[in-house]
Amino acid sequence: MTRNLPGNLQVRADRIADDIDGLAGLTEPDKPWTRRAFTPMFLKGRHYLNRRFKEAGLETRIDAAGNLVGLRKGKAGNGTIMLGSHSDTVPNGGRFDGIAGVAAALEVARSLNDAGVQLEHDLEIVDFLAEEVSIFGVSCIGSRGMLGLRPSEWLERQVEGVTLAEGIRSVGGNPALIGSRDDIKAFLELHIEQGPVLENERIDIGVVTAISGIARIEILVEGRADHAGTTPMGLRLDALSAASHIVLGIERTATDLSRGPSHFAATVGEFVMEPNAANVVPSRVRMLIDARAIDRAVMEAFSDAVATLCVEVVSKCGVSITAPRRISDNPPSLMSEKVVALLEESTAGLSLSSRRMVSGAGHDAAYLNSAAPTAMVFIPCREGRSHTAEEWAENDDITLGAAVLYETVLKLDKE
Amino acid sequence: MTRNLPGNLQVRADRIADDIDGLAGLTEPDKPWTRRAFTPMFLKGRHYLNRRFKEAGLETRIDAAGNLVGLRKGKAGNGTIMLGSHSDTVPNGGRFDGIAGVAAALEVARSLNDAGVQLEHDLEIVDFLAEEVSIFGVSCIGSRGMLGLRPSEWLERQVEGVTLAEGIRSVGGNPALIGSRDDIKAFLELHIEQGPVLENERIDIGVVTAISGIARIEILVEGRADHAGTTPMGLRLDALSAASHIVLGIERTATDLSRGPSHFAATVGEFVMEPNAANVVPSRVRMLIDARAIDRAVMEAFSDAVATLCVEVVSKCGVSITAPRRISDNPPSLMSEKVVALLEESTAGLSLSSRRMVSGAGHDAAYLNSAAPTAMVFIPCREGRSHTAEEWAENDDITLGAAVLYETVLKLDKE
Repeated sequence: MTRNLPGNLQVRADRIADDIDGLAGLTEPDKPWTRRAFTPMFLKGRHYLNRRFKEAGLETRIDAAGNLVGLRKGKAGNGTIMLGSHSDTVPNGGRFDGIAGVAAALEVARSLNDAGVQLEHDLEIVDFLAEEVSIFGVSCIGSRGMLGLRPSEWLERQVEGVTLAEGIRSVGGNPALIGSRDDIKAFLELHIEQGPVLENERIDIGVVTAISGIARIEILVEGRADHAGTTPMGLRLDALSAASHIVLGIERTATDLSRGPSHFAATVGEFVMEPNAANVVPSRVRMLIDARAIDRAVMEAFSDAVATLCVEVVSKCGVSITAPRRISDNPPSLMSEKVVALLEESTAGLSLSSRRMVSGAGHDAAYLNSAAPTAMVFIPCREGRSHTAEEWAENDDITLGAAVLYETVLKLDKE
Repeated sequence: MTRNLPGNLQVRADRIADDIDGLAGLTEPDKPWTRRAFTPMFLKGRHYLNRRFKEAGLETRIDAAGNLVGLRKGKAGNGTIMLGSHSDTVPNGGRFDGIAGVAAALEVARSLNDAGVQLEHDLEIVDFLAEEVSIFGVSCIGSRGMLGLRPSEWLERQVEGVTLAEGIRSVGGNPALIGSRDDIKAFLELHIEQGPVLENERIDIGVVTAISGIARIEILVEGRADHAGTTPMGLRLDALSAASHIVLGIERTATDLSRGPSHFAATVGEFVMEPNAANVVPSRVRMLIDARAIDRAVMEAFSDAVATLCVEVVSKCGVSITAPRRISDNPPSLMSEKVVALLEESTAGLSLSSRRMVSGAGHDAAYLNSAAPTAMVFIPCREGRSHTAEEWAENDDITLGAAVLYETVLKLDKE
């Protein structure tokens, strides 16, 4: 839906649309829109962005962590205001996830040029490397790398004989250098919401106050493989049946916790049954729970409830279940209240509607937040869909978000 | 457990043990006990059996359907009494499943020789080709083929560029000939029970009165792939959660039906979820139900209950579910009452305990039953386990079953 944009915007919708359409053209042709980090198509996207950055007068470089950085010089010695997101995608996923944030950040730089604004601070526009789970199985490689938060053992991860270290070198980075930045005064990231709240409530801007923590919890159910035809119903140890009780218990618990005051969601995203043969009683199920919480206490309550649930299912079904194991656990990230307040001021100044919200998804901003005052701007997306070919955001909505970034950069620059 | 065998047996335990141990030695070395039809290891087993058949004085041939047949001539023109089972195995499955029946049948022929018995009928000992689900995805290829019941389109099934027709030729059969036998007077098959009933009730012999019908029912659940972090619990269409309700509903229904007067069991043996990615709400589940019933009315009641269950889950969870589809449906097979009665007479004559029972598993006997009066002898197996490396039957229990076959052949011969 195209809307009548307010007349007071300093940013231009057409240039944002050009950037996004240009990147959309650089996709694996048989599965739009795919531009996974470290692939040749990703490098084509990087070349395109590098040219657009330069056309905007930015001084470009690839930093040691493999991020594409465009610098707009300010007065020396005052530090850096950073804007950015990522241009890599999941497979088949997303014209806008990440890309909208890079295009909006770039448009801020161009619009500052148009207005002849000389900032007190350096401004950096960043396309972070491999925000999505990459072919190496890990995510946010560039933002972690920039701040020295990338686990050193990751460099040895291999895909088809290629290490992540070689991957970082292939995009122009230097994996031997450990990142460190103490000059960042603030970081802002615009992103599509990836949820339905803004669209449903017809709100222009989501001001993100926190990014959920993410725990991944593995459960293994061990039953017994028996002949499906000859084993009486009452004498089975059916791992699938036991696992189904657990799936439904997790859903009940997560739904209850999601009705509390802070964001919570849990999903059994991976579920593999063995031996998966038509005539054999299922002997084993491995499942992986993805749990997201803003409040650590809620995450712990969930974790405890899952452990109790497993004990109940063992008692009910006779199978064995390994104690749930957290295979990863990233803490929640609370955004800077000061930057959140500036974003709200900018939104109000532009007469846009806004609400505070939390992000259920992870973002590079969670890592930047550990080094500098950080907040995010969410804009609506259609039906809350993302990580799918159908993902869609209106260019005008992105433009409004870019205008909020623009005004907030000016405010941050004056601080 | 070795027992004191009664002194009135005409068959010898040691020769049965030799046959079974000999075949057990012919296994894929890294996964005992594996001798899948059409593999080189299967042909090694066939060569071994052919030699043992010849040592017993049998005239051996491979029939057009690929079965190994050993003939002990009787008086001309009176037809054939047939005994047999199969020497192929599932992967990692079974020292005794099928093999015990071939060894017991062969021992009957040898014992008739020892006793100098001249039968009125020809006696044939048969190792049926590919009773288990073979590399070509289908089972009971030899017994169906012998009787003209093998679907003609099966011959074109391919595995790695080899057709089933070529597979049948490779074991010495002639797939161009359509099987037909009108000379079979009766068929008997000994088999391990593959269930726990005889062991639990400490009964020597199960006289099988029927083989279950087997229906395979496919269900597809379609939800919606959404971001696991950002999609609120209440706005999801989670295919795994819906499928879990179905799994538990099937288990409840099957358990209820299994308490009725006739054998019933149902298993969700295949269950595959997509996209199976940690951070994506499950969008799709395919499941395949294996349902076994002696009574067609019970099978239909189950099928109706599953359809109703799917409608309820659609209404509860909002997902779509395709109407359950029967992708195969083999009717139950009721054994010959006359042959069942003769088996019971033989059992009583040997002072063995017996009970009537039904087979939840399919067997070559189900196909032979369509051409000749047929029944089966079950012998106990440890904990009811089968299709697993741990499958075990006591040689003395097999020997008692062979003795029942021996006595019953004499009775059939006099009819």
